[in-house]
Amino acid sequence: MSKLLIVGTVAFDAIETPFGKTDKILGGAATYIGLSASHFDTESAIVSIIGDDFPQEYLDLFKKNNINIEGIEKVEGGKTFFWSGRYHNDLNSRDTLETQLNVLADFQPIVPENYKDAEFVMLGNLHPLVQLSVLEQVKNPKLAVLDTMNFWMDNALEDLKKVIAKVDVITINDEEARQLSGEYSLVKAARKIAAMGPEYVVIKKGEHGALLFHKEEIFFAPALPLEEVFDPTGAGDTFAGGFIGYLAKTKDISFENMKNAIIYGSNLASFCVEKFGTERMQDLTKEEVHSRLEEFRKLTQFKIEVT
Amino acid sequence: MSKLLIVGTVAFDAIETPFGKTDKILGGAATYIGLSASHFDTESAIVSIIGDDFPQEYLDLFKKNNINIEGIEKVEGGKTFFWSGRYHNDLNSRDTLETQLNVLADFQPIVPENYKDAEFVMLGNLHPLVQLSVLEQVKNPKLAVLDTMNFWMDNALEDLKKVIAKVDVITINDEEARQLSGEYSLVKAARKIAAMGPEYVVIKKGEHGALLFHKEEIFFAPALPLEEVFDPTGAGDTFAGGFIGYLAKTKDISFENMKNAIIYGSNLASFCVEKFGTERMQDLTKEEVHSRLEEFRKLTQFKIEVT
Repeated sequence: MSKLLIVGTVAFDAIETPFGKTDKILGGAATYIGLSASHFDTESAIVSIIGDDFPQEYLDLFKKNNINIEGIEKVEGGKTFFWSGRYHNDLNSRDTLETQLNVLADFQPIVPENYKDAEFVMLGNLHPLVQLSVLEQVKNPKLAVLDTMNFWMDNALEDLKKVIAKVDVITINDEEARQLSGEYSLVKAARKIAAMGPEYVVIKKGEHGALLFHKEEIFFAPALPLEEVFDPTGAGDTFAGGFIGYLAKTKDISFENMKNAIIYGSNLASFCVEKFGTERMQDLTKEEVHSRLEEFRKLTQFKIEVT
Repeated sequence: MSKLLIVGTVAFDAIETPFGKTDKILGGAATYIGLSASHFDTESAIVSIIGDDFPQEYLDLFKKNNINIEGIEKVEGGKTFFWSGRYHNDLNSRDTLETQLNVLADFQPIVPENYKDAEFVMLGNLHPLVQLSVLEQVKNPKLAVLDTMNFWMDNALEDLKKVIAKVDVITINDEEARQLSGEYSLVKAARKIAAMGPEYVVIKKGEHGALLFHKEEIFFAPALPLEEVFDPTGAGDTFAGGFIGYLAKTKDISFENMKNAIIYGSNLASFCVEKFGTERMQDLTKEEVHSRLEEFRKLTQFKIEVT
């Protein structure tokens, strides 16, 4: 079994959508990535930082999902990273209401000894220098995947470019791909971003699906059309977790298999948005994931006789 | 061979995009539909109206593409319908600069005798009462497809509902589907629109692809990711023409075959946007269409072993 190392936030989120609002609930990029990847029975570990206000039950949830938490540093007297946001009516955009960095402000990540030989590394959204530090602590990973955000393009672009130069895959949303490349066409944007380092570029388009670029090849996975999207928080991280989880499980990092990984990422993300926060990911079963894979097949597979 | 009857505008367009502008060039819904459907060697006819300012060379173009023009009424002393528009920088939206109805204002469509038994009827964008009149002149078609626009929802909703009630398939864009149904979720919107009559609902999302709904089943075709979109004019009509042209050729109106039709519609539309107006559709070869079909396969087809 492959080892998967995940770095990213473990956080409290407070979310408002047109359907309701939550108090502080479990959130954070590493949380969503970990829960999503755990569907593939990988041996995974999270590197992150929390305060002593972080409930033991959440840590138990990670352990229950076979996620190693040795690398989650607990700061006594510190407070866990907190984010709150309000989604607009169409759920396609949101305003950040509050961000409290708290313990994250001085985070120096330490990769557990047992994960320094991890074959798969998922750099979830965090300061690029933290991502870089984690990557440098791992010896020769088979695949490193980077997820990032426009915030780091605005505030730490040079550092971000250093990480981008060192990873195999970058996942990024469409607006961020345009910002990073200066190109409106996603085909051109992906080419420019690939020239910065990553051999594979994944552009996430939310409800409009995701594109995987590799050299001159392109693969596309739609988002599953849903009756109701309840809360989009964590969908991108869940997508990334499904993507790398599937690759870690199958150990096949060919372009053909990455197509499957993109489909699994979309599959898992389609569950994430059905309830608030991590709620749906916590009770998700293997049978549900398999059954939805069939829905993706029906949605996209065709058999044309050339006329 | 099936007969395909097309009603819609035959027009002059003047188009501005960030890449340039045109004088009055050949345009109109029926024009794009006809040129697109002609790739399937159907026996097709256009019902429309033009003024005596309409050049013979355009009529010859229809004839060259095996499109019967008996049903295109020429009004002596009349002027052809004219539309001009300017696209915004992202090419996803446009402003109408001018609309001159001209001969279209009093159009009473007459279906040629030889097409009153057409098996396939494509009602391109026009006043719903004109669409209805054409449909009523055809005896028992195998499949009637309706395309329409928000303009008719705003100005002739009750008439539009009458046509919608009588067709088998409606093609409509995402914003129009939301307007017509009052539902934001496209899954819910499609269900409400299907309840108005059509057994099949196609929702066009432009660069984000197209969805086909039938009862509880959904199929999705992406748009081909392009380096450059030059001029989106006519893409929706070209999509509709490819869709019905393929069905008319194969004579199979099952849901499974409609998936193929959606792919062919997307295929042809991906060429349409590469040049101004109908330019690309005029020089398009069968080999190019087949080769792009392979691109659609690579873009969407996957083979997952269930893990």
